[in-house]
Amino acid sequence: MEDMQKEFRKLVTIDEAKGIIERMDIRPGIIEVNIENASGYALAQDVISDVDVPPFSRASMDGYAVHAADTYSAREDRPVHLNLVGSIPAGINPDIHIKRGEAAEIATGAVMPSGADAVVMVEHTRIGTSLSVHRPVSINENVMHAGTDIMAGERVLRRGTVLGTREIGILAAVGKMAVNIYGLVVGIISTGNELVRPGCKLDAGKIYDINSFSISAGVKQCGGTPVLYPAVRDDRTEMMEALREAAENCDIILTSGSTSAGSGDVMYRIIEENGTVLAHGIDIKPGKPAIIGIVFGKPVFGLPGYPASSLTIFNEFVAPLIRKITGKKEERIRTTARLAVRVRSEGRSQLLPVGLVRGWAYPIEKGSGAITTLSEADGFIEIQQSVEMIEAGEAVDVTLFGEIETPDLLFVGSHCLGLDALIDTANLRIRVINAGSSGGLVAIRSGIADIAGVHLLDESGIYNIPFLERFGIRNAVVVKGYLREQGLIVRKDSTIRGFEDIIHVRVINRNTGSGTRVMTDLKLRDISRQRGIPFEELTASMSGYHTEAKTHSAVASAIRLGKADAGVGIRTVAELNGLKFIKIADEEYDFVIPIKLLESREIQIFLRALRSYEPSEKLPPGLRTYERTGEIVRIS
Amino acid sequence: MEDMQKEFRKLVTIDEAKGIIERMDIRPGIIEVNIENASGYALAQDVISDVDVPPFSRASMDGYAVHAADTYSAREDRPVHLNLVGSIPAGINPDIHIKRGEAAEIATGAVMPSGADAVVMVEHTRIGTSLSVHRPVSINENVMHAGTDIMAGERVLRRGTVLGTREIGILAAVGKMAVNIYGLVVGIISTGNELVRPGCKLDAGKIYDINSFSISAGVKQCGGTPVLYPAVRDDRTEMMEALREAAENCDIILTSGSTSAGSGDVMYRIIEENGTVLAHGIDIKPGKPAIIGIVFGKPVFGLPGYPASSLTIFNEFVAPLIRKITGKKEERIRTTARLAVRVRSEGRSQLLPVGLVRGWAYPIEKGSGAITTLSEADGFIEIQQSVEMIEAGEAVDVTLFGEIETPDLLFVGSHCLGLDALIDTANLRIRVINAGSSGGLVAIRSGIADIAGVHLLDESGIYNIPFLERFGIRNAVVVKGYLREQGLIVRKDSTIRGFEDIIHVRVINRNTGSGTRVMTDLKLRDISRQRGIPFEELTASMSGYHTEAKTHSAVASAIRLGKADAGVGIRTVAELNGLKFIKIADEEYDFVIPIKLLESREIQIFLRALRSYEPSEKLPPGLRTYERTGEIVRIS
Repeated sequence: MEDMQKEFRKLVTIDEAKGIIERMDIRPGIIEVNIENASGYALAQDVISDVDVPPFSRASMDGYAVHAADTYSAREDRPVHLNLVGSIPAGINPDIHIKRGEAAEIATGAVMPSGADAVVMVEHTRIGTSLSVHRPVSINENVMHAGTDIMAGERVLRRGTVLGTREIGILAAVGKMAVNIYGLVVGIISTGNELVRPGCKLDAGKIYDINSFSISAGVKQCGGTPVLYPAVRDDRTEMMEALREAAENCDIILTSGSTSAGSGDVMYRIIEENGTVLAHGIDIKPGKPAIIGIVFGKPVFGLPGYPASSLTIFNEFVAPLIRKITGKKEERIRTTARLAVRVRSEGRSQLLPVGLVRGWAYPIEKGSGAITTLSEADGFIEIQQSVEMIEAGEAVDVTLFGEIETPDLLFVGSHCLGLDALIDTANLRIRVINAGSSGGLVAIRSGIADIAGVHLLDESGIYNIPFLERFGIRNAVVVKGYLREQGLIVRKDSTIRGFEDIIHVRVINRNTGSGTRVMTDLKLRDISRQRGIPFEELTASMSGYHTEAKTHSAVASAIRLGKADAGVGIRTVAELNGLKFIKIADEEYDFVIPIKLLESREIQIFLRALRSYEPSEKLPPGLRTYERTGEIVRIS
Repeated sequence: MEDMQKEFRKLVTIDEAKGIIERMDIRPGIIEVNIENASGYALAQDVISDVDVPPFSRASMDGYAVHAADTYSAREDRPVHLNLVGSIPAGINPDIHIKRGEAAEIATGAVMPSGADAVVMVEHTRIGTSLSVHRPVSINENVMHAGTDIMAGERVLRRGTVLGTREIGILAAVGKMAVNIYGLVVGIISTGNELVRPGCKLDAGKIYDINSFSISAGVKQCGGTPVLYPAVRDDRTEMMEALREAAENCDIILTSGSTSAGSGDVMYRIIEENGTVLAHGIDIKPGKPAIIGIVFGKPVFGLPGYPASSLTIFNEFVAPLIRKITGKKEERIRTTARLAVRVRSEGRSQLLPVGLVRGWAYPIEKGSGAITTLSEADGFIEIQQSVEMIEAGEAVDVTLFGEIETPDLLFVGSHCLGLDALIDTANLRIRVINAGSSGGLVAIRSGIADIAGVHLLDESGIYNIPFLERFGIRNAVVVKGYLREQGLIVRKDSTIRGFEDIIHVRVINRNTGSGTRVMTDLKLRDISRQRGIPFEELTASMSGYHTEAKTHSAVASAIRLGKADAGVGIRTVAELNGLKFIKIADEEYDFVIPIKLLESREIQIFLRALRSYEPSEKLPPGLRTYERTGEIVRIS
């Protein structure tokens, strides 16, 4: 590796990174496996048959072994008569010699007896005191000779062949129970103080380790053998020991996290001191802080910590390398779509995750910190560094993550737990993009979404309807949905009894523009009027009024963790977090649907499901349908 | 199942068989697996998140947690100064409250401290006696709120979703270490007295069990869980017990063999007596004798015994069923090609295996008894029952067995062990179709083959060259290959010393037209002349002269098994069979190559490899190059 160029704290281009990887000298391991477990792997050896297939000349039909010459005069109405001298089942070596004028019964696959040179099919014979043969056979007819399928000494499979059902069949045919395959043992080490293994308890400040498992699944799909090491803390010694152990036992090491140029950039230094950093930073979004190097003598890839970035860099750079070694085929499919909205480039190459609906590609813009960025995307488009902008409507090439299941409907909007129950009732394939109420309205306006889910409150006290005009949406209707109980969320032991009490405790507020925030402010204005204190003065005196949480969950989480004492949110979230809920009002969660889709089969099914909800039975606690559920409000 | 129509000893059409399978009530098993082993399977449950992701509001950048309002006046040249009150690493629940005018250092992924509502990126700050902030941030900037990615209570994955890297990532993200997947346990039972497990010794009359392993690999590829039972003998009790055991432990049972309508048709009767036969015989080639039924309460598919038929019926009827249940995607790819030769239909539907080369599809006609039928084919064409003939040149749809690796060259001809060594030296992808010398010449004439390998002897004593004219081949040359030692093959303890001795023992002869047969007859004519006996009289007196084996291996096998005492063949085969070899002559193994390809890069590489063989080092024993090797003989 000495001749390789060191790339030092200087971003490399995608092509440079691929060049560096191509020049890495990676030796696959050779593993002996039983043929039952060999499917999908590439052979690490030529396979030479030690045996003939078939190993002996055999009957290929049920019938009678004969001398062909004895049958030449046989006719349907003038049979030849032969002496029956025995019967040969499959699986034995017959001790019979067939003389002229003789025949022996023989089963398919049985060894041809000496003397005989053909088999008469049972259908062309009759049995009496002797065997009547009613049709002639020629020499070798219905006989499969030894080695006609495979000859001993023949190379039946070549090194590098990927083993499928047919190749496994060939291996069995020549009696090979074990073969050498190329295996690539890939060590996976996630780093981060905050990581906890799924299935374990999540203490405050901790998150579950995602990358170990998503990357492990990726390694398997590429034919590699993943070895998961326990996640290590951002500790120099701990990380070095993990790398040393992995280098001893694996062919390649993948780490995730601890790669950025910030204060926690331990990985870079460890590789630098115990090997070679070949590249630090790839000019690509997401995933810029990737490292490529050699550590303790083994190739190492430092993937970013964010799951979406980590998986993207794995797919783009590491997966092709593993597949090249294991011989697993690339499973990616490409398609073409029109871009639904204008996309601006950010001055570096970008793999932009997109969803697909009816031939349109819409960017998934949750940021690389979100795992749902990937699960809501169907694939990605590659934006070259030189491209400044792609206009809405332009054709783009989409690399799919897998086979696409076109959804019946695309929902964009505020997430609501009632939606899952509604989708099950409708039994439609609805792709749900959680983008908030405003995100839903924008998606309706741009023509991407089929349904938006919204709960926005106007200062006049009216839900949702005024916002269509405000967002410039014509040609869509509001379909009234269900009511969601809203109220105070406090800890179970809290002494807070009603809304007025929150003025004196640490609150966590919702973001400006959210329905909950508008409702909170309406209530606070009531209090300011009752007490004769100006609204601004009242809120300035409140601890935390200006702390804006973007989700109901963030409100509940701050209260659960003791960082605030009260907030406003929905009952469902309070109960899921084990918190107390004091109801204040009902919020109206509605759907916005383009008029042109209203009569479509899918929307009709959706609306039927919505209207069937009257008993509210399937809705989670805190949600209920009411007399307006399913009402269509047209905006004039 | 009671309402299903019994199909009794009457062939059903392909569509009828598929209809019967569709109406079968097959219940998949539900299996709990660790997410490390869940990749590729379909979820048997909805997955509802118990946690928010992220579980708390966190910094999405390395930087400083602040009150956004404190930074509003910050400018590059006029920083705001804040008091540094602590540092928050990832993974802990910070016990800090940030007051106005204060800031705390915070790592990416760390919990936001109470009070703070934004994070200033480290790049926009400087540290002195206090923290200087050089750019304003807005509320929530660089903060990811609890539940923005996934909310507790949210359904993150729906039942039926096939788990890929992204879905495994989602499961890890919400802390699920184990999930329920749909599993289908498929019992596999091969039947036949002659079957031996690969890896074991092959006694006379026995063959290796192929179907258990090829079908097992197929079940795995479809997402099923194969359970291999030991092969059972063609014995009623043994088979019934095996079926009973499999029915207890599996969701579906696949048997192979014992299904034909002949004497060994035990399977049919067992199913009939212990369940229901839904179909016996499908109108399809290969694979007619398939059985579909219910036995001991479980669905059973009786596949044919021949490996190629067995795998074809599995792929066509069983694989789609398993995939439907497990959710595994179909991996078949279709392409279009021109048929290289005319194909006649046989009055029933046919799945005809074909190889592909440069856009042409050529039928592989080794018969369903050969396992190499499938390994030499790239896919198959479906011929409808109503079609009588497809002309050469017609476009046909080919269903591929897997991804295609277009070979550099197509070799058709007589198999020779020297070829493997030659291919390795050339390092070309050469597809080898073993079709005998005549098959090779026919393939050259029809324009399919790029190289034919031939060793045909003319009665004049000249090898190969005269046969081009005889086969009507113009525009091709003979390239001299290597010499193969030919001689007598006898058992090690044989007293035979020379060719003349074979007149008095049991011989096994080669087929008329083979080079070896011509040489044998030339030698026998010498003897008849020397002794003054007419040739016909001499050969009529020889035991076995009219027994025609089609391969060198068949000759060796007959001798090894004691069914004959001597035969003529090549040294390589004698040695591989542990037999004695007495050299008689050298045979000339040559290549026939179309003139138009002679200057092509691939043929040039092939010829260079051939000519580099002069030391004969890499050739197997019995083969050697000589002064004519690589010589191009043009036929005028």
